[in-house]
Amino acid sequence: MITLAVDCMGGDHGPRVTLAACRQFLARHPDARLLLVGQPAALGRFAHERAAIVAASEVVAMDDPLEIALRKKKDSSMRVAIEQVKLGAAQAAVSAGNTGALMAIARYVLKTVEGIERPAIAYPLPNAKGGATTVLDLGANVDCTAHHLLQFAVLGSALDSVLKGNEAPSVGLLNIGSEAIKGSDVIKRAGELLRAAGQSGDLNFAGNVEGDDIFKGTTDIVVCDGFVGNVMLKTTEGLAAMIGGFLRAEFSRNLFTRIAAVAAYPVLAAFRRRVDHRRYNGAALLGLRGLVFKSHGSADDVAFEQALHRAYDAARNHLLERVQARIAHAAPLLLPAAAEQPVDAAASVA
Amino acid sequence: MITLAVDCMGGDHGPRVTLAACRQFLARHPDARLLLVGQPAALGRFAHERAAIVAASEVVAMDDPLEIALRKKKDSSMRVAIEQVKLGAAQAAVSAGNTGALMAIARYVLKTVEGIERPAIAYPLPNAKGGATTVLDLGANVDCTAHHLLQFAVLGSALDSVLKGNEAPSVGLLNIGSEAIKGSDVIKRAGELLRAAGQSGDLNFAGNVEGDDIFKGTTDIVVCDGFVGNVMLKTTEGLAAMIGGFLRAEFSRNLFTRIAAVAAYPVLAAFRRRVDHRRYNGAALLGLRGLVFKSHGSADDVAFEQALHRAYDAARNHLLERVQARIAHAAPLLLPAAAEQPVDAAASVA
Repeated sequence: MITLAVDCMGGDHGPRVTLAACRQFLARHPDARLLLVGQPAALGRFAHERAAIVAASEVVAMDDPLEIALRKKKDSSMRVAIEQVKLGAAQAAVSAGNTGALMAIARYVLKTVEGIERPAIAYPLPNAKGGATTVLDLGANVDCTAHHLLQFAVLGSALDSVLKGNEAPSVGLLNIGSEAIKGSDVIKRAGELLRAAGQSGDLNFAGNVEGDDIFKGTTDIVVCDGFVGNVMLKTTEGLAAMIGGFLRAEFSRNLFTRIAAVAAYPVLAAFRRRVDHRRYNGAALLGLRGLVFKSHGSADDVAFEQALHRAYDAARNHLLERVQARIAHAAPLLLPAAAEQPVDAAASVA
Repeated sequence: MITLAVDCMGGDHGPRVTLAACRQFLARHPDARLLLVGQPAALGRFAHERAAIVAASEVVAMDDPLEIALRKKKDSSMRVAIEQVKLGAAQAAVSAGNTGALMAIARYVLKTVEGIERPAIAYPLPNAKGGATTVLDLGANVDCTAHHLLQFAVLGSALDSVLKGNEAPSVGLLNIGSEAIKGSDVIKRAGELLRAAGQSGDLNFAGNVEGDDIFKGTTDIVVCDGFVGNVMLKTTEGLAAMIGGFLRAEFSRNLFTRIAAVAAYPVLAAFRRRVDHRRYNGAALLGLRGLVFKSHGSADDVAFEQALHRAYDAARNHLLERVQARIAHAAPLLLPAAAEQPVDAAASVA
């Protein structure tokens, strides 16, 4: 039996969406239980033999500053959901709330795994091969050292091997050229560390990749700092929205184009399914002593259910233990991080 | 009369594409002259009363290291084209060659304008408003200081006001959130400098923007460092290619979808024109004492002609003088750069 703790109050739509997704999820997985965390008045209507309500009196708003979310709202649905993981009552927590608050609370409540200094957010993006490329960090770790990037690579490899059953997923380092001499000093040093990890068999390092490789699916995993990752993700959202808007505008231009849209409808629907970002919802917060998954804030019930499936798969396939095993295996590589930390930390101020 | 120097040997296709574009360009602009730079044997067939061949015996290959391009091939078509600008024989140079080599040679031959430490590459990307957002730097200035970003904003504003006739184009600072407290130390400091420039009337600073704002067209100009800019541009190329591929695949799946494609053809053609990246070809190398435009290496004749039009517009509208005037106006802001340089330079090593 897998138990997930669900922050039912989070996201742009709250219980209306999260509860609908929970119902669909329970129907799909007979061996799953859910802890529905939130204000009982908002969740009271929901009844299911494999669901229990866990009361939390407060809600972290999408625009709450970290300080408020972390220090003031100690009985928030987000925090109580994560505490269920800490207590062992659930194997994973899922929230569509404020990313910064989720990361801060998860880090505070669960702490990071030995050998990992910063948790990372790993997000799957669809690629031209029909699969998904796992990109991390998208968690706004703005100033990353080379060792942080190496840690992200280890975390991403563990996630990918668990969710896709690929024991040696390939890792690319996001850079501005394929040659090892490209990029900033941090990136070049990260390349050296990743090559060493590849040679020692701890990672399947495929070298530098460029932005277009993410959607080509050149490697299974792409590692970058949180600033670059965030810009990249937001840019792709912007471009996809613009292209979709142009397509709609052209098909609704006049009577003839509307008739063409009817003729092309099955094709356009198939196309839309193929690029449907809802299928890729559910980012993993990696490097914590517990599993936490983040849904997009604007997720509808289909998308939120997808995040629940991901959390379920991760729990069922022992992601946490496998992350820890990988990190233990890579310990000789990760250990120097502590020693070199001051140097990198000073450099990373830039 | 406007004279452009064209590196006819550059790009993936060389004279076959560049000469076809030159012919179309000359037909369109009766007041333009072209200096066709390259190996006479390759250009000999071209005859036009407003075109002259300037011989250059060497060609910079797309994969030539900077060292070779800059120090060994002193009679390359790329270099000779830029030298025409230096000599005053042409008002602008255009090349589809190796970006790194073009930037290095242009900087070596032309030098930067007073007050500008690093040239930047500015690229127009289509936006949902039907216009284009000018993004810079895409020229792989990997480690940028806050002052470099301020300089890029001044350069981009000059370009935009010249090419779009908008005297006070709005500038956004690419960041991971709209609040001033977001981002790395360099970004936060750049935000302070840009706000000061906005208050003194040297720039129309609109604050932080995120990745999706580029395609929304929230601001006329978006400023970022060359690493982020390169990743962003390559990622959008990758996503656009993937979406295009999916759309083609769905329309060619079977007989019925092929019939739907015929019905939808005029709409799809209109859509394709709207997102046709060739319309946006032609990036400006800004901050140099001469005008240089860079075409995408894979440009066809339509795209390369577009780069020629951009260079022509810039020369005709006195981009160089206007960049210099803007920089002179912003001098009190830009001047501290020299004083603070050592601090920033040390920090930017990361």
